[in-house]
Amino acid sequence: MTLKLHNFFRSSTSTRLRAALNLKGLDYEYVPYALRKGQTRTPEYLAMNPQGLVPSLEREDGTVLTQSLATIEWLEETHPEPPLLPTDADGRARVRALAYMIACEIHPLNNLRVLFRLGDQFDADEAAQKEWFTHWVTLTFDALETMLATSRDTGRYCHGDTPGLADICLYAQVWNNRRFDITTDAWPTIARIYTELDMLPAFHQAAPPNQPDAS
Amino acid sequence: MTLKLHNFFRSSTSTRLRAALNLKGLDYEYVPYALRKGQTRTPEYLAMNPQGLVPSLEREDGTVLTQSLATIEWLEETHPEPPLLPTDADGRARVRALAYMIACEIHPLNNLRVLFRLGDQFDADEAAQKEWFTHWVTLTFDALETMLATSRDTGRYCHGDTPGLADICLYAQVWNNRRFDITTDAWPTIARIYTELDMLPAFHQAAPPNQPDAS
Repeated sequence: MTLKLHNFFRSSTSTRLRAALNLKGLDYEYVPYALRKGQTRTPEYLAMNPQGLVPSLEREDGTVLTQSLATIEWLEETHPEPPLLPTDADGRARVRALAYMIACEIHPLNNLRVLFRLGDQFDADEAAQKEWFTHWVTLTFDALETMLATSRDTGRYCHGDTPGLADICLYAQVWNNRRFDITTDAWPTIARIYTELDMLPAFHQAAPPNQPDAS
Repeated sequence: MTLKLHNFFRSSTSTRLRAALNLKGLDYEYVPYALRKGQTRTPEYLAMNPQGLVPSLEREDGTVLTQSLATIEWLEETHPEPPLLPTDADGRARVRALAYMIACEIHPLNNLRVLFRLGDQFDADEAAQKEWFTHWVTLTFDALETMLATSRDTGRYCHGDTPGLADICLYAQVWNNRRFDITTDAWPTIARIYTELDMLPAFHQAAPPNQPDAS
């Protein structure tokens, strides 16, 4: 199977999908798009992904998968080993909840098009954007820290000692936070798990600076 | 199994979970929280759900499930009939992608705490909040309309003739849009599917005005 990953090095959702593909041991062709230059707004790209977002995962037969979490669930179903979700329903619910806290409560509020919109509609400058970005990270990372620090299900990683879907989202978000110099100092469990993950090649090689289009 | 649904009538994520429970034919005790009165910010509620968000689904053994989509996936795994996702991996990826377009690109930008934040940080008044809300709905509903209108997989509902996860998100979002008087007129396929869904008791009974705390 030849996979083409249409993505952007700094995109958090692209980092997620790169980590998932690496964990599954799947090779892919890296196709970079410069978001700020509108390269995902072309008719060709929009025909593949009407949202004009990255990442898109193109399969050999031309089928295109969109939305990073839907694509990762597809990877999990079609390439079950190694698993990115626990086998028990309770564990799966916990891992998905941790992942969605990031994917539904932080990232959507802090991505590039939202920051642009704050500038366009409210004249938000870099400082105001940083305040906005930091607010949403803090609100959810505080709760995430509590949930990770107080649960016996937390292990070396977010859930036990196997890296999975929640770790993928956590790792990508910690990278994204660096855009506004947000460190993990305030969240010791998140910091510890991030450090563990960064020692794994599947994650480290998915990090933004290690991509061919990194600048 | 006795389930307690901690929720709020107007919350879009609560509407999703009510529809899913109804589709699965599961009874639940309805526990309402007035979000504007801070009833989900109490120590008791935060102990159950550290994010202070609705909905939370409490099981008889005291286990609490958070994040509506994680909870719905749990329902799907523990109560497979009737299914809310197709059986094939491609179909599941499509339905999840449609669902996440709403759950990750519209709702997180438009919920109550975001509108409050726009007021606090940018002095956004009702008109500015409406402009913001409408912008994000339009951006994603335009793409969703294209994807639904051009796919042979679209049937009576978002995917074939069985209502599922994407329909749950679509139905809840159309209701949420009414907060700012956004109709479905611009999106004929979305409008058609919403009308079909609203004829199903599982959806209609999940709608905000049909809840005990509706005002």
